[in-house]
Amino acid sequence: MDIKEIKPTKIICVGLNYIDHAKELNMEIPEEPVIFMKPTSSIIYHEDTIIKPKISKRVDYEVELAVIIGKKGKNIKKEEADDYIMGYTILNDVTARDLQQKDGQWTRAKSFDTFCPIGPRIVKDIDPMNLNIECRVNGEIKQKSNTKNMIFDVYELVEFVSSIMTLYSGDIISTGTPPGVGELKKGDIVECEIEGMGILRNYVDE
Amino acid sequence: MDIKEIKPTKIICVGLNYIDHAKELNMEIPEEPVIFMKPTSSIIYHEDTIIKPKISKRVDYEVELAVIIGKKGKNIKKEEADDYIMGYTILNDVTARDLQQKDGQWTRAKSFDTFCPIGPRIVKDIDPMNLNIECRVNGEIKQKSNTKNMIFDVYELVEFVSSIMTLYSGDIISTGTPPGVGELKKGDIVECEIEGMGILRNYVDE
Repeated sequence: MDIKEIKPTKIICVGLNYIDHAKELNMEIPEEPVIFMKPTSSIIYHEDTIIKPKISKRVDYEVELAVIIGKKGKNIKKEEADDYIMGYTILNDVTARDLQQKDGQWTRAKSFDTFCPIGPRIVKDIDPMNLNIECRVNGEIKQKSNTKNMIFDVYELVEFVSSIMTLYSGDIISTGTPPGVGELKKGDIVECEIEGMGILRNYVDE
Repeated sequence: MDIKEIKPTKIICVGLNYIDHAKELNMEIPEEPVIFMKPTSSIIYHEDTIIKPKISKRVDYEVELAVIIGKKGKNIKKEEADDYIMGYTILNDVTARDLQQKDGQWTRAKSFDTFCPIGPRIVKDIDPMNLNIECRVNGEIKQKSNTKNMIFDVYELVEFVSSIMTLYSGDIISTGTPPGVGELKKGDIVECEIEGMGILRNYVDE
């Protein structure tokens, strides 16, 4: 299925979920995932342009592996999670870092139109537990890790989120970002790449 | 239109937005609204049952006036906000208070299935700036205020939210709760009433 054909009813994202990121920040490993949402109105696709809002002085990239749900489910066990997964894609959890810090709640900072690039396509035949993941800005590597460094793996996240809320086909669960987040400026080209999944390329304007 | 016919793509809620609530909590009046989201999967209607999840020891009611958007808009000015409003309804922003405090981010605490009762109907011909609003549990008044005590009025909230994200027909903006929030227990009947808008009645089970 083309990524533009999925119709998510919600996008659930996970905070701090890479061991190497937690170490970098000198933070304790969380006992449970912390979740937040991005609105579907923030979605754009491969080769689209991220628009920096005037109200923010600092907009960051965050490369993430995203799970796309394939059928309705509630209280899905991790052992059966794969049955509920349509596939995977790359998601750039674009964040207005200054507003995130100001508000305390992360919703505004993560919700501007164009702040959720996804793509370039949906892939299924990969091992989500062992994929190189990186983010480049203007060709320079900024984030580089492997999904094996996740604190909660994709099946555990499907179990956790579906213990709270019913998931529907097309819903997206994004699994957190590795270390190295940083700023995007007007004119930048940001490329998020995950092994076997292609490159999600977006331009930055204001 | 029947409330069950609207298809919101998102539910945006506002934190602390009643002057009397801010005073009760001895908090400063915020300069800007703080927003968070509830997933559409949490919606139930009049006479439906709120289910307390086992993982929470403390589930609270929060009566709120909700705005239902009537047409697509971005960067809507408060002076033109009324043109974008289909009508109003009552929303009970059910919250797992213990998880809200534990997580820091409010998403999980506000997102369980059944945690977003709305209804009983959509009304338009009211003055949203001056409506008595109350919440009763088993007939006892728990919350009682007037929408004139809002810090940011409904038009200002439409302007604020639409400055961040595109709004679509059916989208819901909930405008915060007055003082007096408290706990719901199994067997309770919770009634949210706003002047001229009817009563939103829900049952509580676990």
